[in-house]
Formats: sequence, C-alpha cells, structure tokens
Amino acid sequence: MSEILANNPALKSWIEVPNNSDFPIQNIPFGVFKTDSLTPRVGSRIGNYVIDLKSLYVLGYLSNLPFTIDDFDTPFLNSMMKKGKLATRDLRNRLSKLFSTDYNDLKNNTHHVDQIIVPIESAQLLLPIQIGDYTDFYSSREHATNVGTMFRDPNNALLPNWLWIPVGYHGRASSVIISGEPIYRPKGQIKPSPEEDPVYAPCQRLDFELETAFITYEGKPLGDSISTDEAEDYIFGMTLFNDWSARDIQTWEYIPLGPFLAKNFASSMSPWIVTLDALQPYKVDGPTQDPKVLSYLAFNEKKSYDIHLQVLIQPENGEENLVCQSNFKYMYWNMSQQLAHHTVNGCNVRCGDLMGSGTISGPTPDSYGSMLELAWKGTKPLKLSDGSERKFILDNDTVIMRGYSEKNGIRIGFGEVSSKVLPAK
Amino acid sequence: MSEILANNPALKSWIEVPNNSDFPIQNIPFGVFKTDSLTPRVGSRIGNYVIDLKSLYVLGYLSNLPFTIDDFDTPFLNSMMKKGKLATRDLRNRLSKLFSTDYNDLKNNTHHVDQIIVPIESAQLLLPIQIGDYTDFYSSREHATNVGTMFRDPNNALLPNWLWIPVGYHGRASSVIISGEPIYRPKGQIKPSPEEDPVYAPCQRLDFELETAFITYEGKPLGDSISTDEAEDYIFGMTLFNDWSARDIQTWEYIPLGPFLAKNFASSMSPWIVTLDALQPYKVDGPTQDPKVLSYLAFNEKKSYDIHLQVLIQPENGEENLVCQSNFKYMYWNMSQQLAHHTVNGCNVRCGDLMGSGTISGPTPDSYGSMLELAWKGTKPLKLSDGSERKFILDNDTVIMRGYSEKNGIRIGFGEVSSKVLPAK
Repeated sequence: MSEILANNPALKSWIEVPNNSDFPIQNIPFGVFKTDSLTPRVGSRIGNYVIDLKSLYVLGYLSNLPFTIDDFDTPFLNSMMKKGKLATRDLRNRLSKLFSTDYNDLKNNTHHVDQIIVPIESAQLLLPIQIGDYTDFYSSREHATNVGTMFRDPNNALLPNWLWIPVGYHGRASSVIISGEPIYRPKGQIKPSPEEDPVYAPCQRLDFELETAFITYEGKPLGDSISTDEAEDYIFGMTLFNDWSARDIQTWEYIPLGPFLAKNFASSMSPWIVTLDALQPYKVDGPTQDPKVLSYLAFNEKKSYDIHLQVLIQPENGEENLVCQSNFKYMYWNMSQQLAHHTVNGCNVRCGDLMGSGTISGPTPDSYGSMLELAWKGTKPLKLSDGSERKFILDNDTVIMRGYSEKNGIRIGFGEVSSKVLPAK
Repeated sequence: MSEILANNPALKSWIEVPNNSDFPIQNIPFGVFKTDSLTPRVGSRIGNYVIDLKSLYVLGYLSNLPFTIDDFDTPFLNSMMKKGKLATRDLRNRLSKLFSTDYNDLKNNTHHVDQIIVPIESAQLLLPIQIGDYTDFYSSREHATNVGTMFRDPNNALLPNWLWIPVGYHGRASSVIISGEPIYRPKGQIKPSPEEDPVYAPCQRLDFELETAFITYEGKPLGDSISTDEAEDYIFGMTLFNDWSARDIQTWEYIPLGPFLAKNFASSMSPWIVTLDALQPYKVDGPTQDPKVLSYLAFNEKKSYDIHLQVLIQPENGEENLVCQSNFKYMYWNMSQQLAHHTVNGCNVRCGDLMGSGTISGPTPDSYGSMLELAWKGTKPLKLSDGSERKFILDNDTVIMRGYSEKNGIRIGFGEVSSKVLPAK
C-alpha cells in the first residue's frame, strides 16, 4: 500500500488551526455536511473550516484518484469508502498536500477557496454513514468486572467466557443518530421490586456508555473470515459513541437473549470519522492477555491506541461537569481481535458496518465509563457544580463526550458527541 | 383503506394453477427475480409462472397506481413498499383483476403475455428485500419451555419475564440469504466439557429453527411508538425463515449478552413475500395470555394466523424426511404485540426491516421446531428413511421448510426455504 504521507508532523496548513484544535492538517477526518445553500455532501475539516470535497472534485483538485462525482455528491461516505483503503489513503494524502503551506496553487486562487472552504458555524454535520449492521462489544475488563461485582459475585466478577471471547451482541442500526440530535427518555417494562409485577413506565435509570466505534470497509464474502493480521485493512476509521442504556429496562429484559429495548432507542455518534491511518502514531501495547488467547485471536505488533476520553454532564442552562476521564488503551480486546472474532464463523462484514467498543472504563473510579459505575448503582451519587446530584441522567441534561490522541505536539481529535435528554413522549 | 378484492375465493386465473399449488390467484405474493435475459426486477407468481411487474408497468397495465418504473426495475421490493399499504393493496387488486378469467384484455394479447409471463423454471429468485435491521423474537411458549426444561429447571422452565415480555434480540442483516444458497458449517469457540478450556473448531451441533418472519413498511420517526391496533398497517407480508443456530457455540458465548456468532453466520428466507392481506382469511385466536398483559400489549380482534408448517431433512442424494409439523397459530405472542413491544421505547422501524418469530414449536414432540428439541438435546436421535440417525444437522444435509394456509379449498402458500449445509471452510 502507499505511504501515509498525511501524518507528517512537520506539515502546516495555510488554513488557520487554533491551539489545541482537534483538527490539525495531520487529522483530515471525513464527514458529511450541508449548509443553507449546499446540498448534503462529503467533507473534511481543518481547524474551524469544513472542506467541501464535492467542490474540490468539480474544480479538478482530486484528479488521478479513483473517485467520481457520485462519491462526494452524496449524503453518505459509503460510496467513497467502497473504493477501499488504498483509495481513501491517497485521497487523504491529496487533501494534506492541497492544504499544506508547501502548496500555493489552491491557496492563491481565492475564487476557488471561497467555493471549497466553509466556516464550521455555517455547516450542519449529518450522520455520515449508511450503517449496514451495528454490533456492540463488551471489551473493557474494568467495565465487565464492575458490572459483575455489582450484580453478581465480587469474587467471581468476570463470567467464565469473558477472558476467552471478545463478547459482542447485535444492536440496532436504525436508531444510531448524530451528535446534536436530542433523545427522548424511553418507556418500557420495569420491575419495581422482585416481589412486584412489572409496570409500563418511563425509564428511571437512564445511563450513557462511553464508547468508541469503528467503521468498516467492504469485507469478505459470507463464509470467509478476516484474520487479526488483515483486520486493520478493513477498518476505515473511528468515532466517539454514546451507547445510551436504560438500566431498569435492561435488568428485567436481558435474560436470556441480551439487551434489546434497553439499548435500541438511541445511540449517538460524533460526526467526524477519524481514519485509522491518522491514528497510527498513537499505537500502543494493550493489556496482557492471560490466559493465552485461541489461535484465531492471536496477533502481532501493537493493536491498541492511546486515545484520551472524557464525559461531561451539562444540566439545562448550567455548566459542563467533567465526570469521567478514561482512555481507549485500557480495552482488553483490541479492534483487530473484535473483527477477527466477528468473522471467524464466516459472518460477512459490509462497507459501513459500525462496531462499538463497549463501555471504556479505566482502573480508577473517576475513569468509569457509565453512570452505573461512577455512582456505583446509585449508592455514590455524583455532585455537580450547581449543587445537584446525579445517580443517573435526568431530563434536560446534556451528555458530552470528547476524545483525542496527542504526542509530540500533534493532537488528533474526534470533536465531540453531545446529546440532550428530553422527557418521555 | 380500500377493500382487499384480491382475496375473493370465486376468482379463477387464466394462468393454469395446478392442484395444491401454493400460488392460486388469491395469493399474489411479491418477490424479485432475474432470468438469462432479464435484469433483476419485481415479480409476482400465479401457479408455476412468474409475472414480470416491470414489463406489466412498461406495457401500461399498472396505470393509475402510485408507482413509477423505478419501483419495479430494481433488485429489491423496498421502493415499491415505500409507497405504503394502500398502494401495495391496490397493486395486488390490480394483478388479481388482470389475471382473472373475468378479464380478457391481457389474456388475448399474446404478444404482451409473452413479455409478462415467465415459467418458474426459467427464473432465478433473488433475496427480495434490502433489509435494514433484523430482529428475532422468542415467542413460542412451547419452544421456550422446552429449552428451559433441557438447560435449566423443568419445574421453572419459563424465565420470570417470559409471560410479560415478547422477548426479542437483534440479529445480523448482512447474512440473511435466499432459499437455495448453501451455508458453510461455522467455526468458533466450543467448550468440550465444563472442565476443559474452549477450543477453536467447527460447530458440532448445527441446528435449524423453524420460523416465519414479517417485513415492515416504513414506520414512525424515532421516539414514537406503534400500537397493537396500528401494527398490521405497518406489516407488508411474511416469509418462511430458517434461523440457523450453532448450539455448541451458543452455549459458551450467550451469557450475558445473548446469541451472536451462534446465529449470525446465516439465516435463510423463502423468496416470496406473502402479503398480510392475503392471509386475512386465515386469522384465528391465539393462546390465552395469562397473566394479563400490560396495557401497551393488549389488543382487539384476532391477531394470530393459521399457517401449517413443515420441516424436512434431505440427506445428500437421499429422499426428503418429514421431521416436524407445526403451526404458526401456536405462537403465544402475536406479530402486533411484537411490533408494539419493539417500538414502545421509541425505537424506529424502517421499510424493509425483518422480524423473525422465533422457533415455532407446537404442543407435541413431532411439532417441535428445532433439532435441539426434536432429538431432545441429542438423547433421542431421529431415524431417517435411509437408516441414518440425526442428533443435529450433518454436512451435505439439505433442510427444507414449507408452509401454507388453507380453508374452503383456497390454499395460500409460501413455497419453501431450502438450504444445503456444506462442510466448514
């Protein structure tokens, strides 16, 4: 494959990039946007400007790449992604070149620049992927241990299969929404106490789950498997992901076939897909895996990523309260193992499939990735700056997640996923 | 809504319909087909002939209906279904009129008939739906009781939530395949015994599950619910559905988040979608529901359907062995309750979503809908006509499911879903 030229730390952009921006020229993420005058189309971002890839294409700046106008003049990234990893890598390299200070042809053509650059305030970011299937994993040992400690046996918190299997389950693709869209508190069956019959009522224990998600290129045909060595070639990029959960609905429904209505009312994702290419400089070793994994889960080289993660709760008209700081590197099972496991039985993965990491909890109580764990099943409520307490998420709260990788002064960020909770309909 | 004229039992078609055909003029199912010379397109069926709806449209026979050429000149029914229940009902009424003996305009135009009618032997039937999300329910009391008896406690076979909740879980849409496509025996993690570590090996306990599935029209926006009274207006039709299951993989993986690799390697569906309209004459009362269901699951009028179901196993080069006779009417939870439950939390349903019934087991041992139950966990192997025994499904076996409703001499059938099992890759 071609080299990832766009990661060169020496590059500077002629577009202004504020200090601590998530979007230096080394990032070049992909998303979909529209404006009052522009139809939905593929975009990238540098600093506080959106780059209009349709206009770039029309003006001839994307020549000699394997794309057509239809790959950019569309409300989804799928068509572009179908061209494969080599193509999107070359595209990212091209964007890096066009907007670097080493290249003045575009910069000096103000007529073109006006057509290509859109201030972020003028753009509405849209759900960028036509999601085929959505799978959620359960790959944080700390999270699984916390849940097992609270609900089962502190001395045997992990279930017997957990250290062998990157446990996952299928979620609902239709209700994946973009940052900024509010959610409605779900209603459902809740059992007030073990002795009482269930009732039909609004969820009382609404929770977030701090996750990331990865998005796939087209995989292999049904019946074939993707190895851990091949897996990263099938991953386009990552987003922040809030896997909303209704804990009281979940408790009553989940045995024996898993969570269903407790999860499928909404899952929120951040709008920019940060490519796996852009994250290569932030690769790290993951936790030691003991017992030794089965052959199809063994892997070579570093497969984990150092990504700082935060969760903030903002009450209505109030300020943001940082309630969790975690890191993607804590994950016991890495994305390559997740994808190898998902396909080991021949299950086919398609372009635009979404795979959630599972809640990303770290080793310390301030790094737990859900209210369930942070407030320890409601026994340790969080105190917010306005004096109010939270055991779970209340109506009109906004939950915000942010994330970035940083090394040697280069910060590759995800922006944020932010969603407000509205009262039950 | 308009009347369902196409169900008139007095109608006869000028296309020959053999005795006991699943496809009299009262059926008019929908599917997608291609031939050596015709591109994939929407079709219907009468007797042993496929009706080419694209050609019907082009020749002007579908005028004054709210469809365009794009609704029929497409490899999926979704576009046609997006026009809604009133539109597809009127289309079915029109087809019924065009092919009835009361109407000679088309019959007498042999030039047109030659373009519109294709012998079934010349047509290849394709997966007819672009499936958004696939959900599988677990709605047969007899099946849930059998499983609970085998794996848990015969005296408390049903889990506490089962009589309150139409239990369901999300499945994999990408691996839903059409009748005729073979499947590969899946590989995965299997635990040989409680004392041993898991191994990576081909599934040894491959099973079918006798199910039906329903397909939805476009539902309501995220946050809204579909009531039991409204539910049938959102259901286009039904198919036969074989929810392939790897029992040994399932046993090891399914706690706590449900079945995953045990199911997502393949699910097979029959090619013709039989409309819910065509099944109206076969409505029956379902089982008594005790305890009384919660308000959002209560319903008026008959919501169950009398559909005879069969499973047959055919060893390679051998004859078909009837191993199960069941009926859709045994289902404890009906489709309207399933859809109301699925959306009670605001989960959105889209045009082309697929919802499996769950294994349809009846009250007697010969009506159990899976090998797990028929051979009772391998303790009562089935004897086939060639003298061989089956505890589960072997390589090169073909599993066939058939189904039909019948009353007053009118038989509305589904055809079959048939799939051969190939050895693990």
